[in-house]
Amino acid sequence: MSTDIVTIAGGATWQEVAADRQRHRDATIAQLEPPLPELSASEIPLNTIALPKKILSEGELTITDTTLENLIEKLASGHWTSTAVIKVFMRRAGLAQKLTNCVTELLPERALKRAEELDAYIATNKKPVGPLHGVPISVKEHVGIADCDLNAGFVGWVGTVAKEDSHILQCLWDAGAVLYVRTTQPQTLMQIETSSNLYGTTVNPYNTSLTPGGSSGGEGALLGLRGSLLGIGTDIGGSIRSPAANNGVFGFKPTSLRLPVRGWTATMAGAEHVIAAIGPMSTSLAGLKLFTQAVLDREPWLREPTLIPIPWREEEARRAYEGRRVRVGVMVDDGVVMPHPPVKRAMAGVVEKLRKSPNVEVVEWKPWDHDRAWSIIASLYFCDGGADELAAINTSGEPLRPLSHWILKENPHVRRHTIESLWAANLERDAYRTGYAERWDIDVLLCPVGPGAAPKLETSRYWGYTAQWNLLDYPAVVFPTRDCVSVDKDGDEGSEHAYPLGYSPRGESDKYNYELWREHGAEGYKDAPISLQLVGGRYQDEKLLRALEILMDAAELPRSI
Amino acid sequence: MSTDIVTIAGGATWQEVAADRQRHRDATIAQLEPPLPELSASEIPLNTIALPKKILSEGELTITDTTLENLIEKLASGHWTSTAVIKVFMRRAGLAQKLTNCVTELLPERALKRAEELDAYIATNKKPVGPLHGVPISVKEHVGIADCDLNAGFVGWVGTVAKEDSHILQCLWDAGAVLYVRTTQPQTLMQIETSSNLYGTTVNPYNTSLTPGGSSGGEGALLGLRGSLLGIGTDIGGSIRSPAANNGVFGFKPTSLRLPVRGWTATMAGAEHVIAAIGPMSTSLAGLKLFTQAVLDREPWLREPTLIPIPWREEEARRAYEGRRVRVGVMVDDGVVMPHPPVKRAMAGVVEKLRKSPNVEVVEWKPWDHDRAWSIIASLYFCDGGADELAAINTSGEPLRPLSHWILKENPHVRRHTIESLWAANLERDAYRTGYAERWDIDVLLCPVGPGAAPKLETSRYWGYTAQWNLLDYPAVVFPTRDCVSVDKDGDEGSEHAYPLGYSPRGESDKYNYELWREHGAEGYKDAPISLQLVGGRYQDEKLLRALEILMDAAELPRSI
Repeated sequence: MSTDIVTIAGGATWQEVAADRQRHRDATIAQLEPPLPELSASEIPLNTIALPKKILSEGELTITDTTLENLIEKLASGHWTSTAVIKVFMRRAGLAQKLTNCVTELLPERALKRAEELDAYIATNKKPVGPLHGVPISVKEHVGIADCDLNAGFVGWVGTVAKEDSHILQCLWDAGAVLYVRTTQPQTLMQIETSSNLYGTTVNPYNTSLTPGGSSGGEGALLGLRGSLLGIGTDIGGSIRSPAANNGVFGFKPTSLRLPVRGWTATMAGAEHVIAAIGPMSTSLAGLKLFTQAVLDREPWLREPTLIPIPWREEEARRAYEGRRVRVGVMVDDGVVMPHPPVKRAMAGVVEKLRKSPNVEVVEWKPWDHDRAWSIIASLYFCDGGADELAAINTSGEPLRPLSHWILKENPHVRRHTIESLWAANLERDAYRTGYAERWDIDVLLCPVGPGAAPKLETSRYWGYTAQWNLLDYPAVVFPTRDCVSVDKDGDEGSEHAYPLGYSPRGESDKYNYELWREHGAEGYKDAPISLQLVGGRYQDEKLLRALEILMDAAELPRSI
Repeated sequence: MSTDIVTIAGGATWQEVAADRQRHRDATIAQLEPPLPELSASEIPLNTIALPKKILSEGELTITDTTLENLIEKLASGHWTSTAVIKVFMRRAGLAQKLTNCVTELLPERALKRAEELDAYIATNKKPVGPLHGVPISVKEHVGIADCDLNAGFVGWVGTVAKEDSHILQCLWDAGAVLYVRTTQPQTLMQIETSSNLYGTTVNPYNTSLTPGGSSGGEGALLGLRGSLLGIGTDIGGSIRSPAANNGVFGFKPTSLRLPVRGWTATMAGAEHVIAAIGPMSTSLAGLKLFTQAVLDREPWLREPTLIPIPWREEEARRAYEGRRVRVGVMVDDGVVMPHPPVKRAMAGVVEKLRKSPNVEVVEWKPWDHDRAWSIIASLYFCDGGADELAAINTSGEPLRPLSHWILKENPHVRRHTIESLWAANLERDAYRTGYAERWDIDVLLCPVGPGAAPKLETSRYWGYTAQWNLLDYPAVVFPTRDCVSVDKDGDEGSEHAYPLGYSPRGESDKYNYELWREHGAEGYKDAPISLQLVGGRYQDEKLLRALEILMDAAELPRSI
């Protein structure tokens, strides 16, 4: 396969490489049976969410519109074959590509072969292979798949073919998963949007003038359109949570070094000052747990010694809140950037319900120096001053995408560290972590995922609400409130959640965010889902997901969409 | 207290600072009641181990010659008061100082006050404060104690006074411990001997021409003379294990980030490429477990967020080998430096007994590239090219001690890393760890602690047998074989454990070690204890200690000395 790939090393221009990758992607979608209809731009509305219902068959909708829990049950019981399920999800994923540009390729041959094997297994053995028998799992491109290109969003890296599946995919495979689609990511992976020179810009299915978020934005848009019910993202500053939030699905960034990452690719390999996490995104809260537990049950630490050998502690989590209330800190505003009115409204709505629950204790959480946290983590992201990122870009001559330029060139915290300054930054990080741990007297923290709902394209500049928990390495989960930006509810400047009249922004980041709202208002963000974030103590992943179950019940929110 | 300390900052020379520290030490010893006899050099034999029996009273010997297990029982039952016990151990520690130069200061006021409180507690409550009620615990100097100087072996750092007890000491305090003595360490802490310009050279109580090892060499000598039955060392290349081995006691380097380290001091703070571990040294195997469990039971990770929240898994360890044999790899020689004959003899003796045990399966372990492991870890020890070490030394103008010169100036792996070369070195480390994990098909590995018994002073140049497990971050425990270097047993060049006639060394390190044996022979190392090392898989600390219990029983070795 690799010999067919057009590459910079083979003498092509970056535009030729990108065109070839897109041709390849389209060719994999063209294999679908029956073929998808061609859609002209004028046929795609601003909000695309209802479109699959018009294009897919009733049978296809039955399978793809069901909950992940039901899908798993139907597959495990043999009621639905893996082959039937994967065909349908490939078609819906192909459609999602046409609507939002979220796919880098389908894997029809591999997926169908695997599905046949699973169907044969269940026919013979009358039982599923494992807890994820036949479940289609979508994969962010930089998590390597055997025999597939592995470019991490850089044109210059196209042509590197993975020798084997990433470790996490091996674990999921053992549990019965079917891999069938790979999804887009931005140039550098260091954007919370999804824009690259290989595939262009991925957009939000709820409002195509908005971003689906990033860097796992392809996953986000795909899940938003139910082209997948369970996928894999990665997160070093919000890259699982931002796209989960922007597309109204669930996303879980576990504590780092719990889930295996061997086989992914990215720049700055060997850096360990801030550690990225890999984790699930799903249409269902249960999907996050199933995924994580299935991987940990394979004891990945035996093969990847960087990992910490903590098994999934289900029983401990189940007992954690028995006979007592979940103590929830509430932080509407991080003190650096005030969220847009719809986010404040959603927070208020959920908190009101939590306060009425006998299972929840609500306390106010006073953010501690979150602006300092950003300056610490931002100085640790690119310890080489961005050299490795820029080298990867310069290999092909591709231009910097606007948000790559912003994070690398306009970010005042980027510096080339010496060994000494790196050690000093590590100490500052550790002191901040210690200070936060001393203050942490809650079970979980409820807060926004970002300073607004899904942002206008190229405007996602404030990572503070998510990167905070990467610096602290606290697990964090994003969940949909089933609410969305509404002209009726958020248009009134006099409402209790609106900016105060004559609001004077706190600083540059707050001003930028404030002006976005002034410019676009509720109309500009119309239909964007509003999601919230729940954060747990470091390594308390199991207890965090258990707390979210309790909280969603208390807030009368469905655990599955 | 700090105002009384003579310091470089106060205008003193390094010699004046050192003299003041020694005066202070001697003054704390002079407070002992009854005072210890003055001993002239001629009164101190080469082997000092029998001397306490001649100098201490029968009552003092009853308390200090008992096992740690019995001491704990007598204290917990109130049979012996904490005050009586601590007075006796302070005297024996003072005597150990006169014989081996292993103490930096006694803490009589603090210790007696604490002992009184404990005695009052037990009188009132009829129960001990915790599992270490009244147990005297000795502490390596660079593990900070409130209101005491904290110099890490650098003359220039004298005058920094710790504000509070180190975190690990707070945990031990909660468990009932009494702190009473601080022990010596070498300049830079990066020697596996114990030689500084502040206190001179610590020597081995079994043979004062030999080193007690290091860097926790003060602890080693003190425990060897039973001036302590339980103490604290630190280890980044062998610093707990070398002194445990050289003095015939137990020493345990846990997996890193399990036990708390906040409050210790050292150069290169913020470095995280190779992580030092803190751990117990004891006259008893049970002491290692008691110590570790007592600390972990205090959930130190809640206050020190760098730590991994794995509690002590006693039950899991107990069950680990039920109904099956412990699979023990045996590695007599690491393929880089052949051990001296006495070490090979001790290995053979223990292995012979293990082979006969129904509880043990013995397999040969083929070392995998241990020379590469050394080159990787040695290049990560001083990522700044040694600048921080040299700056700490230059602050006072003190000279480099010979082994500091060797590790910093003669070590070909020392280099100033760039961010990029550091990342590359991290990747090399991780790849080596992965390769080793893939080969690790045993429960534990039995191997030497060093390429000989306790070395002649200033000759401890080969760290490979211990640093290997720091690079891999595998827990490792050292235990005494109750054997020692013997002119009768090791003097015969024709014996099966001797170097082959006409031996041709493999390389520079092997040649150095071989020539040491040629020069000094069994006579030169007479009476040095021979200890061995047992290594477990990463994070398998509990199972490692359990395996050692089984192995010591199988080898008919007492678990306590």
